[in-house]
Amino acid sequence: MTKLKLTYFDFSGGRAEPARLAMHIGEVPFEDYRFAASDFPEVRKATPLNQVPTLHVNDVQITQSDAIIRYVGRLAGLYPEDDFQALLCDEAMGALEDINIKIGASFGLKGDDLETARDALATGALPQYLRWLQKQLENHGGQFLADNRLTIADLKAFVILHWLSSGKLDHIPSDLIATVAPKLEEYMNRVAKIPAIAQYYANRGPS
Amino acid sequence: MTKLKLTYFDFSGGRAEPARLAMHIGEVPFEDYRFAASDFPEVRKATPLNQVPTLHVNDVQITQSDAIIRYVGRLAGLYPEDDFQALLCDEAMGALEDINIKIGASFGLKGDDLETARDALATGALPQYLRWLQKQLENHGGQFLADNRLTIADLKAFVILHWLSSGKLDHIPSDLIATVAPKLEEYMNRVAKIPAIAQYYANRGPS
Repeated sequence: MTKLKLTYFDFSGGRAEPARLAMHIGEVPFEDYRFAASDFPEVRKATPLNQVPTLHVNDVQITQSDAIIRYVGRLAGLYPEDDFQALLCDEAMGALEDINIKIGASFGLKGDDLETARDALATGALPQYLRWLQKQLENHGGQFLADNRLTIADLKAFVILHWLSSGKLDHIPSDLIATVAPKLEEYMNRVAKIPAIAQYYANRGPS
Repeated sequence: MTKLKLTYFDFSGGRAEPARLAMHIGEVPFEDYRFAASDFPEVRKATPLNQVPTLHVNDVQITQSDAIIRYVGRLAGLYPEDDFQALLCDEAMGALEDINIKIGASFGLKGDDLETARDALATGALPQYLRWLQKQLENHGGQFLADNRLTIADLKAFVILHWLSSGKLDHIPSDLIATVAPKLEEYMNRVAKIPAIAQYYANRGPS
């Protein structure tokens, strides 16, 4: 049997969380190795490209979060079999990763520079992406981003939307999603109530 | 039959080129719609996220280049069927996209700022990624990045390695790959000689 070990920061978010959720939902056994932020300088030295998450598949250490999410998504039965539905799933994953990258670029900024960069995101790229995601939902049945069922695209969307509305990102209004893409807000709340997801967070405690 | 139309700049490179190559190699019929750079402001207005490439699949316009490459790669028979080999293929695609993003971030800079940013890439991130790609090759048989055969990961690698060594990127030495990852240079030259690829560029003329 394939032995899986996921290595990431010890918090309920970020680039590994969709993989954790997928394996939990699909009952794919894995070691959920979590390290403290203070240990990151040490941990990253042992990774292929100085980045986390990584996934050990038996003895092979894999990098690149979306590759990892797609792989465990297949194992968990949460990736479309149909080519066109897989395309829609991958398209949403790619757009969501754009959001990660755009917000990531503002980390490390301080004071006025941070405020300027985040304001630009909150009034420019983020509304654009959020409205696009809402339109994808509407165009594909209103419930899920692809395949008319829960896929890894929804898990990645859920994690990122939750982050955007957490109030933890300075200068990103926590009601941004509700304001610019209200159906996306409803969608996020619906995904949160999917039994396997609700149970996962009930057991872990608040993120 | 599914009607495909790829929309991108009129040059032999960038984020659409691996999709063009995949469809050419796999003999997947498509409309190769190319526009002049001066038309980009107009073209982008009609795209989902103001970005190219897009792929029309019948009447649905799809964004996100790696999603597009993976989809046409499946149609062309250039994407692994095996889950683990698909993971290796996706992992390489993700790392290659990191290179696109890192170089992309230096576009728009000028003078000393450009030189500083590009020097940092040429001595830091690029050698790191190039050595990693070389190691992936070596670990997986030496010929291809995944599945012991040509996949979309090789097509994306080929396009990006060709760009890096073209001399068209100011302050990126055209012998960087040969210097830091010589087996990657050999690999790039080998991929260029694959008959369907050599024939494609012979017919198109120099890029």
